[in-house]
Amino acid sequence: MPEVIPADSVGIVVPQTAHFDEPLALECNRTLAGYDLVYETYGTLNADASNAVLICHALSGSHHAAGYHSAADKKPGWWDLCIGPGKPIDTDRFFVVCPNNLGSCYGSTGPTSLNPDTGRPWGADFPLMTVKDWVKSQARLADRLGIRRWAAVVGGSLGGMQALQWSIDFPDRVRHALVIASAPKLSAQNIGFNEVARQAILNDPGFHNGHYYAHDTVPKQGLILARMVGHITYLSDEAMKQKFGRDLQSGKFQFGFDVEFQVESYLRHQGEQFSKFFDANTYLLMTKALDYFDPARDFGNDLVKALAHVQASYFVASFTTDWRFSPERSREIVNALLKNRKNVSYAEIDAPQGHDSFLLDNERYLALFRAYMGRIAGETGAAPAATGAA
Amino acid sequence: MPEVIPADSVGIVVPQTAHFDEPLALECNRTLAGYDLVYETYGTLNADASNAVLICHALSGSHHAAGYHSAADKKPGWWDLCIGPGKPIDTDRFFVVCPNNLGSCYGSTGPTSLNPDTGRPWGADFPLMTVKDWVKSQARLADRLGIRRWAAVVGGSLGGMQALQWSIDFPDRVRHALVIASAPKLSAQNIGFNEVARQAILNDPGFHNGHYYAHDTVPKQGLILARMVGHITYLSDEAMKQKFGRDLQSGKFQFGFDVEFQVESYLRHQGEQFSKFFDANTYLLMTKALDYFDPARDFGNDLVKALAHVQASYFVASFTTDWRFSPERSREIVNALLKNRKNVSYAEIDAPQGHDSFLLDNERYLALFRAYMGRIAGETGAAPAATGAA
Repeated sequence: MPEVIPADSVGIVVPQTAHFDEPLALECNRTLAGYDLVYETYGTLNADASNAVLICHALSGSHHAAGYHSAADKKPGWWDLCIGPGKPIDTDRFFVVCPNNLGSCYGSTGPTSLNPDTGRPWGADFPLMTVKDWVKSQARLADRLGIRRWAAVVGGSLGGMQALQWSIDFPDRVRHALVIASAPKLSAQNIGFNEVARQAILNDPGFHNGHYYAHDTVPKQGLILARMVGHITYLSDEAMKQKFGRDLQSGKFQFGFDVEFQVESYLRHQGEQFSKFFDANTYLLMTKALDYFDPARDFGNDLVKALAHVQASYFVASFTTDWRFSPERSREIVNALLKNRKNVSYAEIDAPQGHDSFLLDNERYLALFRAYMGRIAGETGAAPAATGAA
Repeated sequence: MPEVIPADSVGIVVPQTAHFDEPLALECNRTLAGYDLVYETYGTLNADASNAVLICHALSGSHHAAGYHSAADKKPGWWDLCIGPGKPIDTDRFFVVCPNNLGSCYGSTGPTSLNPDTGRPWGADFPLMTVKDWVKSQARLADRLGIRRWAAVVGGSLGGMQALQWSIDFPDRVRHALVIASAPKLSAQNIGFNEVARQAILNDPGFHNGHYYAHDTVPKQGLILARMVGHITYLSDEAMKQKFGRDLQSGKFQFGFDVEFQVESYLRHQGEQFSKFFDANTYLLMTKALDYFDPARDFGNDLVKALAHVQASYFVASFTTDWRFSPERSREIVNALLKNRKNVSYAEIDAPQGHDSFLLDNERYLALFRAYMGRIAGETGAAPAATGAA
């Protein structure tokens, strides 16, 4: 638990739930009759609702982006580094909304929710979601909150894909899109790694065709493997070298299959911890949403055309050692925007930690992020910052 | 089956078996009481046994490096592209020896062999092997064949590690070492991927603690996953893009967990095929041998010191898009050799296929390989080539 909640924290936050009765038609041609979105907000919506910022989470993220749920919490929300008073997304200026995505396992309607048709958990019968579906569901949340136009839609990785899709699907509702450590679509290699993770889960004897809840078990080993392989792709080769190198757990080779190298111990531990709280059906759904994402697909596979009608200005950032979504992938987005003569700021940040960099402390990254958000605050007439740089 | 066996093939070859009664003390502090090595040879040993070339195989390789076992064979040996009359390793000039490594599953003593102490297959009780152990076992085969000094020891990937180790452990028995698409040791990321593969196998319910033979089953799903993740690391991002891109199996999204993208189909097929013939205990053993390889370890982690006493000349080759063992890793070997003022030729080959490039047709690679081997043939007084370039 934090000894004292830090002064630059949004403090104790309480998740809220919005229920939607209107059916949601999905890209998979199925319809969700109704759904809940759990979300958190930080800061205060101004009178003309011009200072609202939407945060979109990535694969294993949640609505809990900043602050603490109780004074006993050991860790704050997943992007607390970037959201709070005086932080890049300054809650003294902005009203920040972070929903949990449909299909996730943190409270919004998803595979662990009860299927109203059966009274049992949806499990594998929950419809597969796409980034477009999420954006549509989030737009209804914006309506509910009285937010006609976001000052900014912001996300990293799969979250960045949602920011990009928002600017395409609702051009007049997004003033700025911040697309960080993301890509305009997955590569065959990206899909390949996702498929390894899925096969690990789907073939785990504990999966029971996605209805493991009824068997009071989970496909634990599949989830562990999925997280292990995922985790390797989140880190750079260099970061793994710095963190573990070839250091041995016990100082010498054991010539067996227990942990020998510290990197093995780390990956097993990460997988093990993850398998205790994350839902396997959600993992499958999230990897499919990643695979499906491809906004150019509706425009003859031409990203330039896909971005022809956007009205947003963009902040695109990538990290030099990110090999999951390399800088080259961000430049594809930037180039397609430039070809459309759209406003775009691009930052290629020198960072050793790979894809995870978007979640980590990096002076240049945070300075550029802060500066860009400061510009938005100026434009939208958000209240001046109580603390920190403009 | 080949319509006609090609003129530049070594033709029909018959594997041979050498039995060794002398116990082999292993790095794991265990001893193999006796063992068999299955091997193939191509070409003719000259009178002073100066034209012998040792081929070392990689993770899933075998002694069958060139030619056909019968006229009905659909495919030749795994390195037929490089071994044969007029090919880079010219069998009109060289006497080529390729053994199957101890611990493998193609006939040399390994986990599928009978443990003389129990009369049952060794399974997981087979001792873990290291590259040093293999080199020692191969040296005995050299003795048996009357080969005091190899004109060249040649290998790609894990095979290149054996070539490097040979030159360190038996400096006066290696005239040239050809180390292709290899590395002086695995990185934490390399070990991480191996660990994912191992965990997939070790936790497969069919593994039965490595004694699945007795249960008349195999850890099929574990092997499939291991091969899938391995296969991704053998290909470059670019190669996967060229080969599959985001092409769909059926032309549109299915919104389910059957194959959607062609890359998924490819990886599943590769895994499935592999699981039909490869032994899971061997897979585990091979990945551990890779992890353990680190010749600098015996020399205060100083590769320069490890290579101080080598007498061989070296041909080191890497491929630009190989991210498993990148050119940088080959340059570590080259730089350590240069610091010792050893003879080394280094080629960084522009090739799109990633790690697999060492097995594939590439004009510049084959030309340099051929030229280097031609130089060796000149030095060692091997017979002039019957066909092809000098």
